[in-house]
Amino acid sequence: MKFISYSYNQQAHYGILTQQGIIDLTTRMGKQFKDLKSLLAAGALKQAQKYLHEPVDFSEADIEFLPVIVNPNKILCVGMNYADKRAEFEQTDPAPTLFVRFADSQTGHQCPLIKPAITNEFDYEGELAVIIGKNGMHISEQDALSHVAGYSCYMDGSVRDWQHTWFTAGKNWPKTGGFGPCLTTTDDIPDPANLTIATYLNGNQVQHDNTRNLVHKIPELIAYISTFTALSAGDVIITGSPGGVGKKRIPPLFMKAGDRIEVEIEKIGRLSNIIADEINPKR
Amino acid sequence: MKFISYSYNQQAHYGILTQQGIIDLTTRMGKQFKDLKSLLAAGALKQAQKYLHEPVDFSEADIEFLPVIVNPNKILCVGMNYADKRAEFEQTDPAPTLFVRFADSQTGHQCPLIKPAITNEFDYEGELAVIIGKNGMHISEQDALSHVAGYSCYMDGSVRDWQHTWFTAGKNWPKTGGFGPCLTTTDDIPDPANLTIATYLNGNQVQHDNTRNLVHKIPELIAYISTFTALSAGDVIITGSPGGVGKKRIPPLFMKAGDRIEVEIEKIGRLSNIIADEINPKR
Repeated sequence: MKFISYSYNQQAHYGILTQQGIIDLTTRMGKQFKDLKSLLAAGALKQAQKYLHEPVDFSEADIEFLPVIVNPNKILCVGMNYADKRAEFEQTDPAPTLFVRFADSQTGHQCPLIKPAITNEFDYEGELAVIIGKNGMHISEQDALSHVAGYSCYMDGSVRDWQHTWFTAGKNWPKTGGFGPCLTTTDDIPDPANLTIATYLNGNQVQHDNTRNLVHKIPELIAYISTFTALSAGDVIITGSPGGVGKKRIPPLFMKAGDRIEVEIEKIGRLSNIIADEINPKR
Repeated sequence: MKFISYSYNQQAHYGILTQQGIIDLTTRMGKQFKDLKSLLAAGALKQAQKYLHEPVDFSEADIEFLPVIVNPNKILCVGMNYADKRAEFEQTDPAPTLFVRFADSQTGHQCPLIKPAITNEFDYEGELAVIIGKNGMHISEQDALSHVAGYSCYMDGSVRDWQHTWFTAGKNWPKTGGFGPCLTTTDDIPDPANLTIATYLNGNQVQHDNTRNLVHKIPELIAYISTFTALSAGDVIITGSPGGVGKKRIPPLFMKAGDRIEVEIEKIGRLSNIIADEINPKR
């Protein structure tokens, strides 16, 4: 099953995405669940599934997608997590590379992904996003997948000339993190370690791999992260991107206004964003 | 003037700290200002100052200090920002080193600072914290200090064997970030670039410097950070620690249960925490 966050008439909603359209949950689930994060926090995904066969309220054309989780408490990003990417960036540290995105760096499916005016090195990284459904700390690898609510696609848009080894400044520009289109629940993806992932720039495949090649797999990441920080419902772990990023190509291949960037992951769907220039950058 | 966040009878409060005691603001300011962050966001610090001469409600012994800002939206941490520290860690990148702390890694003045069971390298870093009072993005260096509400002390407790060049895992353990005792307003500190800062471990001075020796000064940090991410009221920038950290001493000097760690900054005060062992670490 697929859940989305979206806006309709300038109001934030969430609902179920079906092939026929969108079944709104905001009104059906009531005020105690104000968004998808609070639905997860209450453990009420199953409760929401009973509305799956109701008539749809909206078509995709009626709504604007929001980031799947609009305001996660924590977004933890894993760098250098496919062998090809590690080779490209000459990363040899055996520990998971981890940095943080702020929630306001995100944007939704089909919304503009904003290229900052200051950079000519706006690069793509297509990634699998893990959405936490159950709170925990010191989670074991064995228990880890029981803490996952579902999976999504993520475009970790990166400003390479501000990145450094600590990542923060390269990864937090407004609306550079595409997150969507939907949360696909774990019952549709029993094995997240066998999903084809690909990134397309203007229709041309620029990254391609399978999540079986993640160096640090999802259970290990959840165990490692929850050793030092609590994970709670709605938190997001983005698991790193395959090789083939623009920075390491000869010649380099960066994104510019008008380009279409897409991340497709098997069983989840295709996240699509058009690059737009930053408007009115004050300098 | 000095503002604090604290708990009394298990309830979160905030107020004015005076030599006579604490003047509670939670009830005086009313429900629209539920915490110090919302007071800052409403630009109501000045409005709160009119209660300065009222009788005190509590003594320090009555209350438990909370982190000055309990739940900042963003905590940006600057690493390697004093010349001595840069030399210790052989840092040569000219850009500000930036990493992120989550709000739940913080603790208040006189509360335990928790040494994780997994590490024997729990290190001290005494720092000046800048608390943002006015929202902004693309803030110029000239305007930067007008976005500051005040300053505080910060103990950036660091788990060195989990730190890496991306810092995240070394800096986010629960209750490792001491923040207090108070927000000292900018009218008491017209020049934040001339403050003596010192760290004491069991009464022995282990770090000592002056903020005039910050490599990236506060206006530059605010301008740099706000280039890529919006700053809003209650956000915190911790500006880096002087040389003399335990990791780089021969022999190394780390913190263990029962130690007292203190950060004293001129015109602000002295933040004091006792180290305690993590209770019931699940392994």
